[in-house]
Amino acid sequence: MSGAEQAAGTGQAGSAGQAGSAGQAGSAGQVVADYWAAAEARDWAAYGALLAEDVVYEVPQTRERVTGREAYLRFNAEGFPGDWHLAVQRVVSQDRAAVTMIEFSEGGTSQFGLCFFDLDEDGRIVRITDFWPDPYEPPAGRAHLAGRY
Amino acid sequence: MSGAEQAAGTGQAGSAGQAGSAGQAGSAGQVVADYWAAAEARDWAAYGALLAEDVVYEVPQTRERVTGREAYLRFNAEGFPGDWHLAVQRVVSQDRAAVTMIEFSEGGTSQFGLCFFDLDEDGRIVRITDFWPDPYEPPAGRAHLAGRY
Repeated sequence: MSGAEQAAGTGQAGSAGQAGSAGQAGSAGQVVADYWAAAEARDWAAYGALLAEDVVYEVPQTRERVTGREAYLRFNAEGFPGDWHLAVQRVVSQDRAAVTMIEFSEGGTSQFGLCFFDLDEDGRIVRITDFWPDPYEPPAGRAHLAGRY
Repeated sequence: MSGAEQAAGTGQAGSAGQAGSAGQAGSAGQVVADYWAAAEARDWAAYGALLAEDVVYEVPQTRERVTGREAYLRFNAEGFPGDWHLAVQRVVSQDRAAVTMIEFSEGGTSQFGLCFFDLDEDGRIVRITDFWPDPYEPPAGRAHLAGRY
């Protein structure tokens, strides 16, 4: 259950973590922790088992959409071949929804990834809305109103 | 309670909504719905009443940080003078945390805003982590693996 450990280790996952087992639907927070643990491990069988057959993945920033488990598995397994790693920073879940903040790192750089998940009645992930916010310079007009860190 | 109606109207806020009243800490989902309703109304008194004295606001993309209620009220009231509007698309809350997805529109363009909130023991917002993901072109290497919408 490395996913559970990972989420608990952030100190942010709160009380959502429940140990899941095969055939038993865990909480949404547990399912998405398992999802990221499987991605980090490139364990595409475990990853696929968390997905609904009719899962829909969307990236609003690029307007990319992938429909169906097979296509989405291929998108992940073939679309991101690098030596990347991810660390779950936060999990917030409610009913059959969960949101994660991850830090995705590769080759000395890192980026935040923000993901909204919806689960179906069987506890499988049926919808993923994925955001990858890039750094930008703040408008000069508000420079006197905020510090930098 | 337009905030509650707005959040409920998305069909995503789920069961987190609880009517709050003065002196009674509402759920995190209700507090952040009220926060966005107050921002949309430019009701800075109502907005400020939802914030902890020692609130910290951060934008990881710009590394901007604003510390304290007075400074954060000024950042909002003076830093964003335009005729903008916002609509809450999703609220996911758990314990004293909440995440919102809003659509922020101004002058015919719109953008997603993603906000992670933490509440203190009194139910006031004590930490805000704010993301503004911009559109980008997807890498050519995965074009065959995803459609566009």
